[in-house]
Amino acid sequence: MALIVQKYGGTSVGTPERIEAVADQVCARRRAGDDVVVVVSAMSGETNRLVELAGRVDPEANGRELDVLLATGEQVTIALLAMALERRECEARSYTGSQVRILTDSAYNKARILDIDGEHVRSDLGHGRVVVVAGFQGIDEAGSITTLGRGGSDTTAVALAAALKADECQIFTDVDGVYTTDPRVVPGARRLERITFEEMLEMASLGSKVLQIRAVEFAGKYSVPLRVLSSFQEGPGTLITVDEGDNDMEQPVISGIAFNRDEAKVTIRGVPDTPGIASRILGPIGDANIEVDMIIQNVGADGGTTDFTFTVHRNDYQRVVEILQALAEEFGAREVAGDDRIVKVSLVGVGMRSHAGIAGTMFRALADEGINIQMIATSEIKISVVIDEKYLELGVRALHQAFNLEEAATAAG
Amino acid sequence: MALIVQKYGGTSVGTPERIEAVADQVCARRRAGDDVVVVVSAMSGETNRLVELAGRVDPEANGRELDVLLATGEQVTIALLAMALERRECEARSYTGSQVRILTDSAYNKARILDIDGEHVRSDLGHGRVVVVAGFQGIDEAGSITTLGRGGSDTTAVALAAALKADECQIFTDVDGVYTTDPRVVPGARRLERITFEEMLEMASLGSKVLQIRAVEFAGKYSVPLRVLSSFQEGPGTLITVDEGDNDMEQPVISGIAFNRDEAKVTIRGVPDTPGIASRILGPIGDANIEVDMIIQNVGADGGTTDFTFTVHRNDYQRVVEILQALAEEFGAREVAGDDRIVKVSLVGVGMRSHAGIAGTMFRALADEGINIQMIATSEIKISVVIDEKYLELGVRALHQAFNLEEAATAAG
Repeated sequence: MALIVQKYGGTSVGTPERIEAVADQVCARRRAGDDVVVVVSAMSGETNRLVELAGRVDPEANGRELDVLLATGEQVTIALLAMALERRECEARSYTGSQVRILTDSAYNKARILDIDGEHVRSDLGHGRVVVVAGFQGIDEAGSITTLGRGGSDTTAVALAAALKADECQIFTDVDGVYTTDPRVVPGARRLERITFEEMLEMASLGSKVLQIRAVEFAGKYSVPLRVLSSFQEGPGTLITVDEGDNDMEQPVISGIAFNRDEAKVTIRGVPDTPGIASRILGPIGDANIEVDMIIQNVGADGGTTDFTFTVHRNDYQRVVEILQALAEEFGAREVAGDDRIVKVSLVGVGMRSHAGIAGTMFRALADEGINIQMIATSEIKISVVIDEKYLELGVRALHQAFNLEEAATAAG
Repeated sequence: MALIVQKYGGTSVGTPERIEAVADQVCARRRAGDDVVVVVSAMSGETNRLVELAGRVDPEANGRELDVLLATGEQVTIALLAMALERRECEARSYTGSQVRILTDSAYNKARILDIDGEHVRSDLGHGRVVVVAGFQGIDEAGSITTLGRGGSDTTAVALAAALKADECQIFTDVDGVYTTDPRVVPGARRLERITFEEMLEMASLGSKVLQIRAVEFAGKYSVPLRVLSSFQEGPGTLITVDEGDNDMEQPVISGIAFNRDEAKVTIRGVPDTPGIASRILGPIGDANIEVDMIIQNVGADGGTTDFTFTVHRNDYQRVVEILQALAEEFGAREVAGDDRIVKVSLVGVGMRSHAGIAGTMFRALADEGINIQMIATSEIKISVVIDEKYLELGVRALHQAFNLEEAATAAG
């Protein structure tokens, strides 16, 4: 008998019929003897409807009252799911974030969980009930309703699993697991049986948006085994677990290939190579609330000056160019250049820590296809390159093949 | 500076635009220096939408989870109204029933308020904030969400006014007050400046459905001055207050004329005139969950038997006739007769306690129009007659004129 926390997102509970399908699945699990806690999101479309309502009363709605409004979305779902379970004679009880007592800070619209009092939930489980919890919401010290920001239901599920010391936290989504890369780009992309938290973080932030980064971090921090599964078809999904160092040799070297289409790069050439120049360039970018991803600084062709290149989201490209042009004048820089038709492709795998030559294989595979690499960045478990966007599919397919990702991993799972 | 509790129903907050109009009105009151607590219902149509959703998951939805679902309706409104107030720089804070801590029993779907902890609300008022409270809902001892049943928002407002010792509880509706009778029947019907709780109860239960009976009872019990006003037009409305005995002489004799179209009467003739016969007849009616209104028992034409007549809601007429026919056989009664084309018309007024001859004036006015009275029932502050439904309008108009109700009351208000 295990204690399982299951989380169903908005699409999985998008209609009364889908809620009934979830109820069937939860009942089956309960009847198989497991204790089940279910975390649900608002029905798909509901949060947008509420935001639109708020906008009609206050176009800049935010803060405490927006959370009071948004929290109703999940409250509707917990009630409907608990009803559907009871109707199946599967005893159930619903809880809002405030009723569980999911204590958060008071940062409305993006609150962080501080503590979970699992007492009520544990007591209900002890009575054989399924417990249905509203995701995405909590309560602050003063008793005000808070929300965790979009996608916060994943975080609720993981935090509850940690607080209850659950055996597994299962995130049901519209995909059946984490893949070696996007199957729309590489039809032979393979579902991974397991992946480490660190790899998952790199995959997620790089565009494989299966899970909220925050939830993965949380799960990693509290070592909650996390599984991504499909709401719509049966299967084992992908298990996300801690990297048990001694298993390294059994891990496939590369877990997957992530990519991000929405990148742009900008370069400011011939700025004085003096201490603090990086912060003088990036300071105004940060002040404009623009996030910078890869950063590369090269010594310029002449002595005494340097070239500075970084990537940003494509939406921010024009603003960044304008900021840099103003700075270039100030610094007497030579020129500002940019390209908003680039993409980033990354190899991710904890195995690469103990394997030499990965970068070489990667660069050769791209060169063999005639793909020019414009920027390179590396970390412990990731190598990223920036290439022309027209080579994205070709590059990802070449890498997928070069690292034999279509074959089942030898010792994984 | 007064403390005012205002309640706005579903129609008054039915759209974002109407919520803005309410916000304007509340702000104006606050800026005039009063402390304001606002109780709101779900936006019109919302509760039905939620009930329909529940029905798709469980056609017999009831109990705890239905209340979790329904309570979201008012929660949406409090958030939107608080936002609209804040946008007008009128500081505001919303509270669900659970956040105020409106403690109820655990009778889901029709809970009764046990206690209100006004501490948070008082503290916010002390800080100059408008407090916006979700009507219709509370929380039980175990922390589960409860609802008070349809129309319960009026009760929330009155109970809050009692707990906070408010100077007045104002119920905003789609009518501008309580009238001497239905203006659709008597175009000259006059708005009453004031009416006593007892009169209001008689008027309400007899068909002038402006306020929930429960709310009026509650207000009477705790002596909360209650005012009915229009959300859509300015005006003083009608004040509902305690009957201050010494004022009797200043009261108009009759406050109003109520009527009820949905009545039916049944008679069982020639039942043995023995002790307990009434309960042997009415017992099975009550067991069938049918409410009986007027009851009259006459000695029959022959000695030793009696005739027994009562009125019920027209919807129950057929079932009552069937029950009586079975009983008639058992008792050896002579016959069961009935009429489902009757109405009840009632004069209501605390003044009639100290005025003789009211009944005489009433009966003469009806006789002058050739209207036959089929049944009569009297109480301290009410005289009701049953007449043929075709005489309803004629009878009400005749009485309205006979008691000079179109003229402004001499000393009221």
